[in-house]
Amino acid sequence: MKILIHHGVLITMDEDAVYRDGCVLAEDGVITYVGDNIEIPADVDTVIDAKGGIVMPGLINAHTHSPMTLLRDCANDLALSDWLNDHIFPLEAKLDDEAVYYGTLLACAEMIKSGTTAFADMYFMSENAVKAILESGMKANVSHSVMGLHNDYKKHLSEGRRLFADFNGAGEGRLKIEHSIHAVYTCSREAMHKTVDAAIEDGCGLQIHLSETMRENRECYRQYGKSPTEVMEDMGVFSVPTNAAHCVYLSENDMDILKAHDASIAHNPTSNLKLASGVANIKEILSKDVNVALGTDGAASNNSLDMFSEMKLSALLHKGMRLDPTLITARQALAMATLGGAKALGRAEECGKLAVGYDADIIILDADAPSMMPVYDPISLVVYGGCGGQVVTSMIKGQIVMENRQLVTLDMEKIKEGIRRAAIRMGI
Amino acid sequence: MKILIHHGVLITMDEDAVYRDGCVLAEDGVITYVGDNIEIPADVDTVIDAKGGIVMPGLINAHTHSPMTLLRDCANDLALSDWLNDHIFPLEAKLDDEAVYYGTLLACAEMIKSGTTAFADMYFMSENAVKAILESGMKANVSHSVMGLHNDYKKHLSEGRRLFADFNGAGEGRLKIEHSIHAVYTCSREAMHKTVDAAIEDGCGLQIHLSETMRENRECYRQYGKSPTEVMEDMGVFSVPTNAAHCVYLSENDMDILKAHDASIAHNPTSNLKLASGVANIKEILSKDVNVALGTDGAASNNSLDMFSEMKLSALLHKGMRLDPTLITARQALAMATLGGAKALGRAEECGKLAVGYDADIIILDADAPSMMPVYDPISLVVYGGCGGQVVTSMIKGQIVMENRQLVTLDMEKIKEGIRRAAIRMGI
Repeated sequence: MKILIHHGVLITMDEDAVYRDGCVLAEDGVITYVGDNIEIPADVDTVIDAKGGIVMPGLINAHTHSPMTLLRDCANDLALSDWLNDHIFPLEAKLDDEAVYYGTLLACAEMIKSGTTAFADMYFMSENAVKAILESGMKANVSHSVMGLHNDYKKHLSEGRRLFADFNGAGEGRLKIEHSIHAVYTCSREAMHKTVDAAIEDGCGLQIHLSETMRENRECYRQYGKSPTEVMEDMGVFSVPTNAAHCVYLSENDMDILKAHDASIAHNPTSNLKLASGVANIKEILSKDVNVALGTDGAASNNSLDMFSEMKLSALLHKGMRLDPTLITARQALAMATLGGAKALGRAEECGKLAVGYDADIIILDADAPSMMPVYDPISLVVYGGCGGQVVTSMIKGQIVMENRQLVTLDMEKIKEGIRRAAIRMGI
Repeated sequence: MKILIHHGVLITMDEDAVYRDGCVLAEDGVITYVGDNIEIPADVDTVIDAKGGIVMPGLINAHTHSPMTLLRDCANDLALSDWLNDHIFPLEAKLDDEAVYYGTLLACAEMIKSGTTAFADMYFMSENAVKAILESGMKANVSHSVMGLHNDYKKHLSEGRRLFADFNGAGEGRLKIEHSIHAVYTCSREAMHKTVDAAIEDGCGLQIHLSETMRENRECYRQYGKSPTEVMEDMGVFSVPTNAAHCVYLSENDMDILKAHDASIAHNPTSNLKLASGVANIKEILSKDVNVALGTDGAASNNSLDMFSEMKLSALLHKGMRLDPTLITARQALAMATLGGAKALGRAEECGKLAVGYDADIIILDADAPSMMPVYDPISLVVYGGCGGQVVTSMIKGQIVMENRQLVTLDMEKIKEGIRRAAIRMGI
């Protein structure tokens, strides 16, 4: 199966190469040519004309809780603790298998429509999420969240391990199963230790929440006399590849720990603003050469899964906060959403750029969108002028999952009906 | 001419009324019914099925420089003074009539596509902008920017006055011409005084830039011993209805002055972050009961004209900066982009809400957009989950300007070609 995308403005993210009128050739899901337009090879099965639109790597959402699309907008403008304890946790207790399945389908539909091709997911009842993700054609690193201050963590961990045994590598490698420590404030030492042991044994990565709020740090110092990052290090967390979400309150030493262990940070600027957690110190984190990826967090604290919006905010926010317009350039923001995300998901050799030998995870933007013209600098154009609604075509490992804005793998009518029924069952 | 929009989720912004399955009837461009669905009247000319999508007032962009779409992305990640002096001003010197015309057409296309129906514009060579706006069907308050530290202001002011004489009230009132004082640092006392006199004589409003940067304030104190707001008050500025853009650095006294004169503020959160100007103190400004509208600023400092993005940012930013998640609710953000904008444009009795007697300036969002479901709270849904790309249909004074995402009044191919030619002439 050979697919040619031609007449696109190519942003490769491969040593910053950009082609003003270029093409990408993919064979059996893998990129075999990237560069200036070529003659259409005789044996090509599908030719896609980008019509001058931007062709770029699919975006990678490095932190989300996909079934939470179901809880989108059920509570807003509240503090994290009130939001979690009074609204989110009680509603989550009502989620059933079908709700998680449809919530994840909705998330996949939203992510595909807005240009995301891979994501890291942390939730529970995850076998339902996995089923939905496999149907969608997306790539995901799925983790079943371990929580528990007593023995209750064991149930979660055994579910996570079963998930790993059943699904790791499914969908021809599109799916990776990882383990997850929800946070230092929801897990006992034993829960953290045992989850790290499981990750070592399974040879997989870890997803964690880390230093999301000042309160988390304060209480951690009270309990352990150390920062959440220091406690996690003591528990052996960073001895396996770790994707640490939020990291709003890191000390210099915390950043050094993350760098020493080659951990990744998933920056979630929208969620951190919305829940008034604060703003992560991305300038210093980048200056320490820690890998930074971007995430939307769950739809309930964003309330969208649009990575274009996240890129733009990450490029804007730090400039305005520090009164320095040179901070976080468009190129850095796009790198977080592509190269940085690929590394955070342990897929740096597989996706995040358009290069020979990489998977054909490619999106094409609408050449006719007024906000995408004129084209001077394609990278700043997509970061500052782009939005999810401008993605017209998307492929993952060479499989077309959206064409001319129509979802190919997913059925919106079925999803809408499933969401409607779930909402009724949950009484929301 | 009677148009019925039915089966929509109606956000009216009229005393917060929301209808889950409602309809709007418009007759000769004016709304005659808003409420639950009714039988389709026999004499209706056009019926639009919103299919469960959100139906709401068109958004109002209270501060932009529409021809600057031509300069989108020509310079990024720079400080305001470098950006203006080294990039924007030299390029603007090369703009010709046709460039301003096509730049404005592109801006109108982008605004219509992203749900904006009215805007305030401040630029020069404005008769070309006016021509484009009239073609588009949009509403606009257009002002020719007065700048000049010596006698050079006179030319601008006389052009502004000619613009008023020629075009105020054109397009059946869709167009209003106002006068404009570019800023305290670009205008002499005489330039400010004379522009105020012109506004008094013409009976029109004023558009100004006010306290955009710390530097502006610092230099104003050095020159006048007063804040820009105090200087403008001395010049008589607020004696006419004034739309003051930015207002990032206002003192308590400045806010009191604006309130006393019933002036409006156009908050431009994206531009203020991107140019690292800072973050306006919207919490205090709102607590003083000053009218706050929202603007994108020009495309060169944003780089889009998407008011959905501006609404979301205004609802997020202040929460995260002040660590208070209750600040600037979704409802307040939407009010800035509708009611607040209408007031800033002197159109509070004409648009900004869906209510009987108001103009039919209405947008319809895609009911099938994954990020727009499920619908619990329609207002927070559009503010936190909405994006410009979800607008499918738009009408202004009852004239359909976009239908099923297709522009009706504007020809994208013609615009693209015009933009291409202008860019070549300008050597960019």
